[in-house]
This record gives sequence, structure tokens and C-alpha cells, in this order.
Amino acid sequence: MTDWLAVDWGTSHLRVWGMSRAGSVTFRTSSDAGMGSLNRAGFEPALLALVGDRLTDKTPVIVCGMAGSRQGWAEAKYVAVPCIPPGIDRATQVPTDDARLSVHILPGVKQTSPADVMRGEETQIAGFLALNPKFDGVICLPGTHTKWVHISAGEIVSFRTFMTGELFALLSQQSVLRHTVAGDGWDRIAFDEAVSTGMSNPAELAARLFSIRAEGLLNDLHAGQARARLSGLLIGAELAAARPYWLGQHVALIGDDALCKAYGDALGAQGLPVERTDAERMTLEGLKAAYAGLKETTQ
Amino acid sequence: MTDWLAVDWGTSHLRVWGMSRAGSVTFRTSSDAGMGSLNRAGFEPALLALVGDRLTDKTPVIVCGMAGSRQGWAEAKYVAVPCIPPGIDRATQVPTDDARLSVHILPGVKQTSPADVMRGEETQIAGFLALNPKFDGVICLPGTHTKWVHISAGEIVSFRTFMTGELFALLSQQSVLRHTVAGDGWDRIAFDEAVSTGMSNPAELAARLFSIRAEGLLNDLHAGQARARLSGLLIGAELAAARPYWLGQHVALIGDDALCKAYGDALGAQGLPVERTDAERMTLEGLKAAYAGLKETTQ
Repeated sequence: MTDWLAVDWGTSHLRVWGMSRAGSVTFRTSSDAGMGSLNRAGFEPALLALVGDRLTDKTPVIVCGMAGSRQGWAEAKYVAVPCIPPGIDRATQVPTDDARLSVHILPGVKQTSPADVMRGEETQIAGFLALNPKFDGVICLPGTHTKWVHISAGEIVSFRTFMTGELFALLSQQSVLRHTVAGDGWDRIAFDEAVSTGMSNPAELAARLFSIRAEGLLNDLHAGQARARLSGLLIGAELAAARPYWLGQHVALIGDDALCKAYGDALGAQGLPVERTDAERMTLEGLKAAYAGLKETTQ
Repeated sequence: MTDWLAVDWGTSHLRVWGMSRAGSVTFRTSSDAGMGSLNRAGFEPALLALVGDRLTDKTPVIVCGMAGSRQGWAEAKYVAVPCIPPGIDRATQVPTDDARLSVHILPGVKQTSPADVMRGEETQIAGFLALNPKFDGVICLPGTHTKWVHISAGEIVSFRTFMTGELFALLSQQSVLRHTVAGDGWDRIAFDEAVSTGMSNPAELAARLFSIRAEGLLNDLHAGQARARLSGLLIGAELAAARPYWLGQHVALIGDDALCKAYGDALGAQGLPVERTDAERMTLEGLKAAYAGLKETTQ
């Protein structure tokens, strides 16, 4: 039986899990009603469109992600580092027209210098720490905006965001490289070489990107080689800058499987063992931890 | 009276100048019938749509740019460096249905290692060298794909292309930064600081890009500051990698005025005097040099 709803509400997607009181998933559903496509009045209807049929009694709804941004459903103000991943006590309660909903939006985390923000990742971190309470080290969350997060004594100490994933998407889909890298091909050797090149000379990135195009024209570079090289150059440059985070550290990866495989390969080539995790499970464990806090405060 | 047509046919635009035998411009016209929007059969009609009314006798048409690419009107194969900017003797003649046209497409220039190509810029270089025959040094052509070109004894010795302009366009128009950098504002101090930052730590580019977003959220960074910082970080990283080209050199800039001003400011901050030029004039002088070659061979 569904006791509460776990919600990951990002820029482009809305994902909802029905959760039993014991913490197991009773159903999962999703839509493309992301924060980016909604105005403030659109959030409650978008949620009801997905789960309205399933609600009976008043149901706690625990939300993480961009729904808590200033342009979202209701602003859940950032908590500043160093901090534990913010729990239900820092959540913003949102009034709803439908009395069956009791909505709590978890805040993101901010850092003053260098200026940085996260929304959603802090909940995956909370989930990882709930499962690994003694973890000290670095969590890397590859994605559109990859995060490197330094964890110590249960706190987020510092973090740094790289636009690597968004650069890959823009360059592979919309730049002059889009024909050269078309398709899903992947050449592991080309990737490894490009990571090494990107790490050792990150300044040359914009030139080496154009070389992918030129080698496509002059040397019939295959699309799979080109695609892997594009990814490797970008990740290599990121690893060069993120070295203070990962060097000599215990690194856990949370994110999309294919992307975590690429980061794992790149870090492995530096002699670094990494721990892969199940990203959906981390999100759910983080939301469950927040729900547990809600139960405590209402008992 | 119009004796011949000078044509710069790029990916997104077609530009045509009517030229007198003495080399003065009799008319200028343009359309958005760029190479990217045409199939092979579309080039002649696109040209006639612009200038068909003005043609009487058989008219030489000298073309530079992407119309000579494999997907263009007719392939004008790349000439390999080191080479003088290729002239009319290396041009591809294109048969036409309309007997009034006598079309010659100038080839681009290629480099094997590192792999690189140019199409169109070699004609601007030819124009610059026609006006400055004793020039030895470096020509920088800022644009979507900025070129750094080493010139010695009238030859293109080597060159390197940076995707800096395309990265700026994608990031400022289509990435998460698009709201933060919206508008035409420009903060010169923010630009200078960002060039310096980008040069001294180019590896951090993807992180410093996201910081623009974060500072927009947390510190109310103004759009003009954000836009100048985005440009400065990208140009700074490029200057770090292009240092072997410009250090201690005489640098001439050919390109869009605002962009050349930015590159001139950035290079000026490194203590480097630069020479600004009129980009349209360089294109026309290059095409005129090719036309002069045509007159010689037909006399």
C-alpha cells in the first residue's frame, strides 16, 4: 500500500515513486512535465495528472530537484556548505488546492567561493550516506552538470560543478561536429587516448575539438572514434581541473550507467579504483531518509 | 560597369559583389542561401536569383568559401600547407546551365598534423598579403572557428583552428547560461579578468562556466558582466593554447569588428600590439588577386 510519494522533479522530467511505509516501491511513473516547461500554477496539476487516481488519504509528498528553485513550485532556499545534506527540517512546505497532498520540497546546497549550487544531487548524496554512514572521500555525480563533492564526517565540505555533460550534448548535437560524431558508436581506445590528451593539455580543448572535424574530412575518422574522442577530451580536461578532488581519494560515482562507465574508465586509467552505485536507489534512499525525519517530527 | 562577380559563399550566407574591371565595387547584395541550406542543384539558381537580372555577357564569377566543399556546388580540393594562398590556377571550374556564368571556385587549405582545414579564410589571407606583400608573422581570423595562421615568405606555413566562437554561440544561446548572459551588455573589466583567469588555468573552463550561472543565482551577477566573462574565459583559454603562435609576433586581425576588438583587447593585455584590418576588404582583395590571375591566363 502506498503511504507516501517520492518525487524527483528536474528541469526536463518529473519522476514519482509510490512508497510503502516500510520503504518499498509500490509503483513508479514519470512524465516530461519538468520544471522548465511549467509555471508556478502548473506544478500541482502536473503531479495530479500522474498520480491523482492513486491518492485516497492525505499523502506526504517528498520532493527533491529543480521544483525547489526560484522559478519552481516554491523556493526551497539553498543551505550553505559545510552542511549535512539538508533533511526534512530544512524543507519548504507547499500549500495545495487538493487536500490529499502534503508537499515538502527539499532545498539545494550552495557554496560561496567558488560560487556553486546543486539541487537534487544533495538528496542522492544523503541516500549514499544513509547506506554508507562512515564514508569519507569524494562523490562524483556525472551528468549534464557533473558535481565533485568532498565528504567528511557526514558533511558536504565543498563541491565543484563542471558543465562537461552539457558541452558534450551541445557539441555532439548542434555544433559543426554533429555529423562527424553521429550515432551511438564508441571506440574505447580513442576514448582512453583522448582522456590522456585532455588531461595533459586542457588549454588546447577548443583546437582539438575542431581537429575531430578536420580528421573526419581528411582522414575518414569513424563516428565511433570521433564520439569517444569528443567525450574523452572533455572528461580529460575535467579530470585535470578536478585533480585536487580525486587524487589519492576514495571516489564513489552516482549517475547514468553509461556516463559512470566512462568516468570509471577515465579514473581507472589514472590508477584510481572507483565505486559504482545505483543512481535511482540513491535518490530513493535520500528521499526515504527525509521521510523518516518527517515521521519523527509528527510522532 | 560590372565586369565580374566576387562571391563569398559560406555555410549560412551568400554574399556577392559586382566588380568593375578596375577593381571597384559596382554593387553588393546577399541572401541567406548559404551552402548549408542548398543541395548541389540549388547553387546556380540561388546565384541567379540574386544577380540574374544584372548579367548580360559571359561573366567571370570567382567564389571562395564553403561552396567548394564536398557537400557544396563542386568540390575544390584542399591545397596542403606549406603553400601560398591558392589562386585561380588551383580553382575548380563549374559547368552551368546559364551560359552567362563562368564560375571558378577557389580551394581551401589543409594541414595533415595536427589535422586542420580552412575554406574562405585563405582568400582573406591572400587579400592581406596582396596589400602587405612583405608581411611575416601571424594572422588571427576570429570567428565561429577562429584561425591562427603562421605566414612566412608569402606562404601559409601552419595554422590552428579553435572552436571558440561556436562554443560562445552555443553556450550563450542554448545552454543553462543563456538567461545569465542575455542581452548585449559588456563589462570590459570582467572581460579582462576572465581572459587572465582563462589563460592561467584553462583546465578549469567547464567549472568556471558553471560558476557564471551560480554567481547569477547567488550574487546577482549582471548580464553584461556574465557575457563578458563567458567570452573572456573562452578567449583566454584559446590564447593559452595559441601562445606559440602569438608570443613575440606581429599579429594582424581579420574578422568581425566587435570580435576583433575583443581579441585585440585580450592580446593588448599581454603587451602585444595588433593590427586591425577591414575583413570585407581582405575578402575582396583576395578575390581580385584571383581574378587578376584569370585575366593573365586568358590573355
